[in-house]
Amino acid sequence: MTADPGSGPAAAAPSAVLGLDIGGTKLAVGVVTPDGAVHGLITEPTRRWEGPEIVIRRLFELGHRAVAAAGRPVAAVGISCGGPLDAAAGVLIAPPHLPGWLDVPLGRMTRSAFGLPTYLENDATAAALGEHRFGAARGARTMIYLTLSTGVGGGAVIDGRLHRGAAGNGGELGHVMVRPGGRPCTCGRRGCLEAYVSGTNIAARATDGLRGGAISSLDDVDPVTAADVAAAAAAGDPFARAIWTETTDLLGQALTDLVNAFEPEVVVLGGGVTRAGAMLLDPVAELVTREAMPPAAKAVRVVLAGLGDVVGVVGAGAVALDPPV
Amino acid sequence: MTADPGSGPAAAAPSAVLGLDIGGTKLAVGVVTPDGAVHGLITEPTRRWEGPEIVIRRLFELGHRAVAAAGRPVAAVGISCGGPLDAAAGVLIAPPHLPGWLDVPLGRMTRSAFGLPTYLENDATAAALGEHRFGAARGARTMIYLTLSTGVGGGAVIDGRLHRGAAGNGGELGHVMVRPGGRPCTCGRRGCLEAYVSGTNIAARATDGLRGGAISSLDDVDPVTAADVAAAAAAGDPFARAIWTETTDLLGQALTDLVNAFEPEVVVLGGGVTRAGAMLLDPVAELVTREAMPPAAKAVRVVLAGLGDVVGVVGAGAVALDPPV
Repeated sequence: MTADPGSGPAAAAPSAVLGLDIGGTKLAVGVVTPDGAVHGLITEPTRRWEGPEIVIRRLFELGHRAVAAAGRPVAAVGISCGGPLDAAAGVLIAPPHLPGWLDVPLGRMTRSAFGLPTYLENDATAAALGEHRFGAARGARTMIYLTLSTGVGGGAVIDGRLHRGAAGNGGELGHVMVRPGGRPCTCGRRGCLEAYVSGTNIAARATDGLRGGAISSLDDVDPVTAADVAAAAAAGDPFARAIWTETTDLLGQALTDLVNAFEPEVVVLGGGVTRAGAMLLDPVAELVTREAMPPAAKAVRVVLAGLGDVVGVVGAGAVALDPPV
Repeated sequence: MTADPGSGPAAAAPSAVLGLDIGGTKLAVGVVTPDGAVHGLITEPTRRWEGPEIVIRRLFELGHRAVAAAGRPVAAVGISCGGPLDAAAGVLIAPPHLPGWLDVPLGRMTRSAFGLPTYLENDATAAALGEHRFGAARGARTMIYLTLSTGVGGGAVIDGRLHRGAAGNGGELGHVMVRPGGRPCTCGRRGCLEAYVSGTNIAARATDGLRGGAISSLDDVDPVTAADVAAAAAAGDPFARAIWTETTDLLGQALTDLVNAFEPEVVVLGGGVTRAGAMLLDPVAELVTREAMPPAAKAVRVVLAGLGDVVGVVGAGAVALDPPV
């Protein structure tokens, strides 16, 4: 985060804040009130190829429009963006979903555009706080959040406080190893959870199998997406079911490790892959309940995220409503 | 923990506390001052076969002797014991290192023996707090602790506060899966870290190999201990070196997962297996530095524990000096 040192009191008890969510394909902005409601929501394509200056200028225009549409003043701005980023300095370092956006001083730019205290946070970390304050983990003392999307991100709230960690990324929960020596991961290791259960990797595992000669209703689909795999599995296609079962097994295995280590009350699963719903949740929750240490297993609920597509805006707002001290 | 509701203020700022450590082979007691020093330390064999009533009566006698020897009053009592236990209720449920000690209301017994607020904590959780307040992780904001002993226990201090978790065990860090489908673990899963790198399991892996016909200087040793394996590895025995390298590889792999997830500033390794010193620490620290996500790897130090054999007493004291709110 990047606080304007002169604005402590205003930031401490804001009536409403502006949440900015910078995705690789979509910008979303809105005014978030302390009840978690989003007012004046606007989304539009990122068009990241226009480069940081143009996109960020557009983002700020959207922000001003959202504040006008919401019809209420805001006391701070929260920004959710994929890492790596330096939250304390307010700098985007080199987010892979925004190629060429190197060392962008987004905190400073936002502060000067709005004249308000500004808090930048890793998207999955912000989403964890959003789900804790206003979503599926409301009221939990300790929760972990995983988003299964292009990659697998995560965050944690521990004893009611957002976990930021010594590196400021707040926990990389997608990089628990599930298959030693397995598929290469973007992090450089092999066999990480992300290398199997991100949307990208569910699709890639299916594509690899089809290229290897698997017989499936997916033979005619090109390119195959994770949603295609889920749909084919639901329709009973044996190849797709095998891919899906491996997905839920590995996710359940990694969550068991994390449930043992963090002992959360709630595990929240979000991101595009969770659109598969009960077909994802049920086998994963069943595996965690069966395999985690009994006290941890008894204490935990595994649930789907509650905030849907506005999680980025709400998460950014939650960070600004309850900034780090 | 079990607080005496009438003694809040005394518990809030004690001048000194009594620490009681109940191990399977050894009892240790001492008075712990707010600087972490131990006064009047006494240790003696547990003789657990005498049963809970006799052993606990003896433990309390040792406690009173330690207070007399330390020559200063104590304001609270902390107790460190292996789980499973119910810290909030002050009850030992069924600790495997104390067979037959079922549902022992140790908190209540201690309170009536000393007339003081009493706090019971899982041994590895208490040790984590001890190492954070007074040992190798002093000053760290976030740290994790693993003890490699008969089993593999763990604890964490997050943002300066002891992590207790929803299940009250404060994190079972020994049950990260490192070999899917691998060796059976006491927890019921297969392939957990504990099933490979506890002292018991290092010895068992060596014994299995020797029974399988491995040629080694350990052929004449019976029974083989983890210390024997470490010594033979240090002396260049190829079989022992292979067992040892697998040990440090798997420990490094699990720590990488935990460093990614918790992003601690410090990882502290304690317990009997760490008597191997640099031979354990160096390859593990090197692996974590190489394999963890770069920001997390950059932020973390992996170190050996600083409190040695008094970690149980100091950990128990740390819990009583800084009780849960």
